[in-house]
Amino acid sequence: MAVIDLCNRADFLPGQRFDIRLEVHAPVNGSEARANTTPDSNFTFTIARAGAQAQSATTYFSVAEPRLETWNFTWFEDLFAQDAGRPSLVRVAAKAYRNVVLTEPGEYTATLMYYNGSTTVANWRVRDIPPRRTAKNLVLFIGDGMTTNMITAARLIAHKMVNGRYQSTMAMDKFPVIGHQMTHSLDSFITDSANSATALYSGHKSTVNALGVYADSSRSPADDPKVESIAEIFRRVYNGGVGIVSTAFIADATPAALTAHTRDRSRYGEVVDSFLNGITNYTWTNWTGPDVLFGGGAEQFFPNRRSFQGRDYYAEFANRGYNVVLNNTALQVTDTSKKTLGIFSVSNMAKWLDRNVYTRNLFGQRNSPDGRNGSAADQPGLKEMTLKAIEILNERHGDDGFFLMSEAASIDKMMHSLDYDRALGELLELDDTVKATMEYLEELGQLEDTQIIVTADHGHGFDVMGSVDTRYLQAQNNDRRKRDAIGTYENSGLSQYTVPDRSRNDTSLVYTNGTYFPANWDPRYTLFSGLAANPDRRENYTVHKDGVRVPALNRTGLPIDDYYVNDRDGLGGFVINGTLPTTADQGVHSLTDVPVYAQGPCQDIFGGTYGNIDVFYRMAECLGLSQPGRHGNGNGNGRNQNSSS
Amino acid sequence: MAVIDLCNRADFLPGQRFDIRLEVHAPVNGSEARANTTPDSNFTFTIARAGAQAQSATTYFSVAEPRLETWNFTWFEDLFAQDAGRPSLVRVAAKAYRNVVLTEPGEYTATLMYYNGSTTVANWRVRDIPPRRTAKNLVLFIGDGMTTNMITAARLIAHKMVNGRYQSTMAMDKFPVIGHQMTHSLDSFITDSANSATALYSGHKSTVNALGVYADSSRSPADDPKVESIAEIFRRVYNGGVGIVSTAFIADATPAALTAHTRDRSRYGEVVDSFLNGITNYTWTNWTGPDVLFGGGAEQFFPNRRSFQGRDYYAEFANRGYNVVLNNTALQVTDTSKKTLGIFSVSNMAKWLDRNVYTRNLFGQRNSPDGRNGSAADQPGLKEMTLKAIEILNERHGDDGFFLMSEAASIDKMMHSLDYDRALGELLELDDTVKATMEYLEELGQLEDTQIIVTADHGHGFDVMGSVDTRYLQAQNNDRRKRDAIGTYENSGLSQYTVPDRSRNDTSLVYTNGTYFPANWDPRYTLFSGLAANPDRRENYTVHKDGVRVPALNRTGLPIDDYYVNDRDGLGGFVINGTLPTTADQGVHSLTDVPVYAQGPCQDIFGGTYGNIDVFYRMAECLGLSQPGRHGNGNGNGRNQNSSS
Repeated sequence: MAVIDLCNRADFLPGQRFDIRLEVHAPVNGSEARANTTPDSNFTFTIARAGAQAQSATTYFSVAEPRLETWNFTWFEDLFAQDAGRPSLVRVAAKAYRNVVLTEPGEYTATLMYYNGSTTVANWRVRDIPPRRTAKNLVLFIGDGMTTNMITAARLIAHKMVNGRYQSTMAMDKFPVIGHQMTHSLDSFITDSANSATALYSGHKSTVNALGVYADSSRSPADDPKVESIAEIFRRVYNGGVGIVSTAFIADATPAALTAHTRDRSRYGEVVDSFLNGITNYTWTNWTGPDVLFGGGAEQFFPNRRSFQGRDYYAEFANRGYNVVLNNTALQVTDTSKKTLGIFSVSNMAKWLDRNVYTRNLFGQRNSPDGRNGSAADQPGLKEMTLKAIEILNERHGDDGFFLMSEAASIDKMMHSLDYDRALGELLELDDTVKATMEYLEELGQLEDTQIIVTADHGHGFDVMGSVDTRYLQAQNNDRRKRDAIGTYENSGLSQYTVPDRSRNDTSLVYTNGTYFPANWDPRYTLFSGLAANPDRRENYTVHKDGVRVPALNRTGLPIDDYYVNDRDGLGGFVINGTLPTTADQGVHSLTDVPVYAQGPCQDIFGGTYGNIDVFYRMAECLGLSQPGRHGNGNGNGRNQNSSS
Repeated sequence: MAVIDLCNRADFLPGQRFDIRLEVHAPVNGSEARANTTPDSNFTFTIARAGAQAQSATTYFSVAEPRLETWNFTWFEDLFAQDAGRPSLVRVAAKAYRNVVLTEPGEYTATLMYYNGSTTVANWRVRDIPPRRTAKNLVLFIGDGMTTNMITAARLIAHKMVNGRYQSTMAMDKFPVIGHQMTHSLDSFITDSANSATALYSGHKSTVNALGVYADSSRSPADDPKVESIAEIFRRVYNGGVGIVSTAFIADATPAALTAHTRDRSRYGEVVDSFLNGITNYTWTNWTGPDVLFGGGAEQFFPNRRSFQGRDYYAEFANRGYNVVLNNTALQVTDTSKKTLGIFSVSNMAKWLDRNVYTRNLFGQRNSPDGRNGSAADQPGLKEMTLKAIEILNERHGDDGFFLMSEAASIDKMMHSLDYDRALGELLELDDTVKATMEYLEELGQLEDTQIIVTADHGHGFDVMGSVDTRYLQAQNNDRRKRDAIGTYENSGLSQYTVPDRSRNDTSLVYTNGTYFPANWDPRYTLFSGLAANPDRRENYTVHKDGVRVPALNRTGLPIDDYYVNDRDGLGGFVINGTLPTTADQGVHSLTDVPVYAQGPCQDIFGGTYGNIDVFYRMAECLGLSQPGRHGNGNGNGRNQNSSS
């Protein structure tokens, strides 16, 4: 058994840098135990392009023979073994080839030989992608966890309908091309956001928690074999502008996977360091930092135990020429000619619903980005951050173009919390951002040179099944009667969210022309919506006015994760026992393919059904990032560089 | 108030026949009560094309003034009024204009004047659709209730993956164009299959339970204002072939809406009569019956209280020249030159899983199509029916082309029953049918002249969130511990359905090359899947081997609908209380947009996001069904007929 197998069926962009990890495993016990419990350390490794002779990897890539490493790891074969405390022990002999490259399109065979004649073969393919650049800029919007079901629900609460016909539609609805991407990962069919971001940015499927690497079994989470991301390639090939924007703490997986390379997404300090300094522990491309980095997560910036080595990353960025802004007011007047770091809160940024409707929730939060436990009440939204990012990127890279990733992170986070209203608010903010972005690009004269993609990284099993008469629900005095408040089919009626309630000015919102959000977040008839997997919870189907929902709590008094209904949540509603393990206090990701909306010079290649890795190859094709040529190593930088071994 | 308002914002295909119902309402009590509780019977009605003068409808359409009708109806304003038994009474004065037509593209204003100066205005649009025909044939596959989430799940259990890469994919996955259609209806955002079939076939949104009509408030469910369906138009304009195939009882909504016109889908006998005789109570197009009608629902055919007027519809069809076949053996050898009726079971047809894996469930069913209470054990699947339908249609209409609707009805029915395995089996059978259809059309030389659409009529809130170790689940002795058997994210692992279990030959299936279904329906690690809204149930996440799942039963001993967990279902699993009203014994439809897959000569017009009615207009454009011209009445038949008033 060898971990090279994880890389079987891998594809590569011509010229993309990567590492290779070889592991020879000797299981000591468990069902996979073998007679010889010492891993063969005399393994050899060859590469062959189809039709050509196999060469040793060191010859092929012109690299020195890597040093041999050995370690042990344990794992549980199943839940019975885990309950019984019976781990399986595996001994490992390993090597790692760093910073190699394949440039010649075609099929390859990578062969590991060990134990005197055993072989493990990986089939690789370098895709034949033309190097012609058709888009100068690319804006990739990621609605984290966003499904077609959620888009449908968001449209329903924000856009008016007359007799079954929408009078306005989402910006996404106007995109000419739709694709579906499959999100499953290398070793599990449900992905997390690290894993899927890696696929979207690098063209390589990975495993849960892994950022820009194939996960190995070594002790260190910082030595796993890396693959180059689209941001790194775009910078290396064109020295183009790179922007990273998210409403999450900025070290979170989706922004992180553009520059970080670790199998452990929770190393947040290192992630922030990688934004600025790239990867420093192993040779890699000459990364010089993004032009724009906007989001939350101040706890990895001001000096404290959660910042990398306790350092002050505001100072680290400033020392490297970055403007640093900590609130929306400063963001709006910042010098757009300079690289800019904008960190607007501790942890995840405020949600649209709290910034715009239930604004008192912004206060008393102890989340000011300066680390002084004030409230971060002056935060930009995704739209403000994205438009400013484009202004900066366009000013700095009007000639060489830019790549911007803008993430509506809290669609996912609020779905995890079963806070459907806030999740849909975030989705509508994303849509408003897409609309404003296209208008601004048009104003800048950049729209026709910019490929715009709106997609997601995975789903949540969310849907809407009808409406709830919340007044009737509250008036019933037992759980089975409360369920009669739910109306399905013809009793779902029409959306009440688009009708302002004149008697309650506080929740009756009016927007500028062409901007669409609910006019009333708290109607009598709400959505009967939910997830297909849940922790224990109580549902009253009413907007959570006091801030983000907390559906379940550990009320056992014990230091174990055993979650029950939060008795202060969903007042007047009815209790539903969950289906998730009782260690879960929130919802989980789901399997569903997610949509890809495309508009721009290469929109046509985004139609149909494909894997999440194919989003990378299609974006790379748009931006002309393919560098086909004869095979070579990775010791060069710059455009159309080819080296031969 | 007037029901003409229901038709506001309606679109029409140039030349499409329709009826108009006008209702003037006088609410007697309730919150809408008015002083004058007699409806104005002296109302008048005009039509004006934009820029032209309004004309009375009788002049405009060259029809006689309809007779005045009056009636009363009651309704409940909300659940409190319903509990209190306080209905609202409404008096109605009404007229109906029958079989009218608009042919000139453009905007129209229809104005109802009543109560000395009150007006209700409906804005109509006749779409400017070119009459050029680009597809000779059109095959419309409907996966009833099928969502992208389900397609994703079906792919997972049937197609092998190596390191996150599928080694084969669904036939649908290979379609070049994807669209999303919005399924909400005229007066509720959750649709049923009647309502949505009406939209897909006629280009007019309708209401729950309505087939090919706008629902009025009159007592008769057979006098509601009709709109012409794509099958009726295709037959009228080209005398083309029409095939109707479904795995449901054939009077069910999705097949029914092609020829039936009633606001009450449950009038099954009348529906079957309409297949053969068209609409007989009001003047309508000269319908002569489909070339092919295949499905279940024998109870509306052999003479009994559920057939129309107790008549023998096998004989009725035979008398009109139809071959009648009642099993798959007869279907395969039938004379393909003749019109053919194939009815293969009482009620819905057998599911793929029972026909192919748990075959003993086919016996002891009392569902033989002859009405003699034998078992319908020799049933064709969707593929066998569809291929035979195409053979017949092509033989009979090789010159003028054909329209075929083929429905995988039990995706929906099995999702209603929370029988996820059977639902996914039906979906995979649909995909296999799509694949076989394309191969057969290629063989016939018809593929490039045939537009193929695969879509759905609505969703169910289904998704997959991980896997379940069913062995561990069964071994735990309390509900909270059983939930630990569920694995999410990295613990979801890979699909076990594609790995044959050699130790159990009965469930380890082998297929012909290119055909994909699970190799093992009963693996240890199953899907952790479910719906977002449920009745009470117990889940053990294991295939239901003894036939279709029954999750909830009325165990109260009372003649009321009050459903609890079926104690014989989901043995060894854990109980979850539902969120649906306790009157529900099954799941319900959901909001989500559903996918549209298109391949063929006019595939490009099916990209992007649009309403379900737009599927009709796009299909009509493909088939050249638009008959633009100056305005006229509906008194003609045949191609390019235009009449003027």
